[in-house]
Amino acid sequence: MPRSQYVSSAVIRRLPRYYRFLGELLDKGVSRISSKELADLMSLTASQIRQDLNCFGGFGQQGYGYNVALLHSEIRKILGLDQNFQAILIGVGNLGRAFATNIDFDSAGFHLCGLFDKDPELIASGRKIRGLAVHSVDELEQFCKENTVDIAILCVPSDAAQSMADRLIACGITSFWNFTHFDIKVAHPEAIVENAHLVDGLMALCYMINDMKKSD
Amino acid sequence: MPRSQYVSSAVIRRLPRYYRFLGELLDKGVSRISSKELADLMSLTASQIRQDLNCFGGFGQQGYGYNVALLHSEIRKILGLDQNFQAILIGVGNLGRAFATNIDFDSAGFHLCGLFDKDPELIASGRKIRGLAVHSVDELEQFCKENTVDIAILCVPSDAAQSMADRLIACGITSFWNFTHFDIKVAHPEAIVENAHLVDGLMALCYMINDMKKSD
Repeated sequence: MPRSQYVSSAVIRRLPRYYRFLGELLDKGVSRISSKELADLMSLTASQIRQDLNCFGGFGQQGYGYNVALLHSEIRKILGLDQNFQAILIGVGNLGRAFATNIDFDSAGFHLCGLFDKDPELIASGRKIRGLAVHSVDELEQFCKENTVDIAILCVPSDAAQSMADRLIACGITSFWNFTHFDIKVAHPEAIVENAHLVDGLMALCYMINDMKKSD
Repeated sequence: MPRSQYVSSAVIRRLPRYYRFLGELLDKGVSRISSKELADLMSLTASQIRQDLNCFGGFGQQGYGYNVALLHSEIRKILGLDQNFQAILIGVGNLGRAFATNIDFDSAGFHLCGLFDKDPELIASGRKIRGLAVHSVDELEQFCKENTVDIAILCVPSDAAQSMADRLIACGITSFWNFTHFDIKVAHPEAIVENAHLVDGLMALCYMINDMKKSD
């Protein structure tokens, strides 16, 4: 599979969306689609789609369009969803519990292998979430020694975010999906940090609603 | 406050991040910052910051930098966070409950005013979340008649997403924050839809981790 040297972050972020739409087409029994039809469906332009996919070698055929199953499987390979990266989640409060329960990690290339919290009652309760017991954060270092951990999902309070990240970096973890309201800093050349600020999306919506009302 | 005719979506999406970082600086007692310092803090370039803020008239002074409190308050005005838009949340399962409990709606310009679910047991339980009772979705139309509703947050199952969106549009709601795994379509000239696919972020992370491992 040909790959260009550099693929922009914007293209990478659109890949999961292509993958999702192609999966829905497959479910509907659609086997072939033109870039124009795919563009309409995804509210993009055909030229944008061609540009995006050309980063990875194209996949379309002039006059035929795209083979849905093939393109779906190629994007799956490009994303590397078969890797089964091992994920741990820190902070099993409301939000952490909801993510552990609801997010389809396996479909996204990850396997959730550990849950950690500092609440002694929660840990002592023996309550399992998605089949996993909640460990004490005191066991974090030992767990990371005994298991491969590729990524940590942070659902701790904001003021604990950086110290927890530092602790995890010391355990050798350099990839983070951060749901706290604080942009963590990771001074490691291989660091990968996704700061998923939910409230930022809500503020952007606030701007857009205001803007719409002003133009009325 | 001068505003340009057209502000790109990328700039709008960065505004909440500026607002958050400036808020943290204020909390630390920082009253003035150069664009270079702000850029380093936010992992941007000084030129990017100047370009972004120039969309709204600038705010910086040559040789002085930015007045942190002033810029924070101007961005608050630009985002329109004082509007107190009324929000309802549909689907009070794990994820909906976690969002209702954890997201600071008021800080983002919204007030959560109604929770809806179809589970008769949950509704009959009288259980309150953030001080709000859970209404039956059967009461949705009546509620929207009696109350101003600016936005609906969708936490329903994916296969119910489009039909629920259609129903809400019929109630006059055109803004949506969609957490289902399905891109809803809203055929309304004033529609504002934010499809917040959490799993897409995870897939992008999968790509980035793969990419990092390949370059090792």
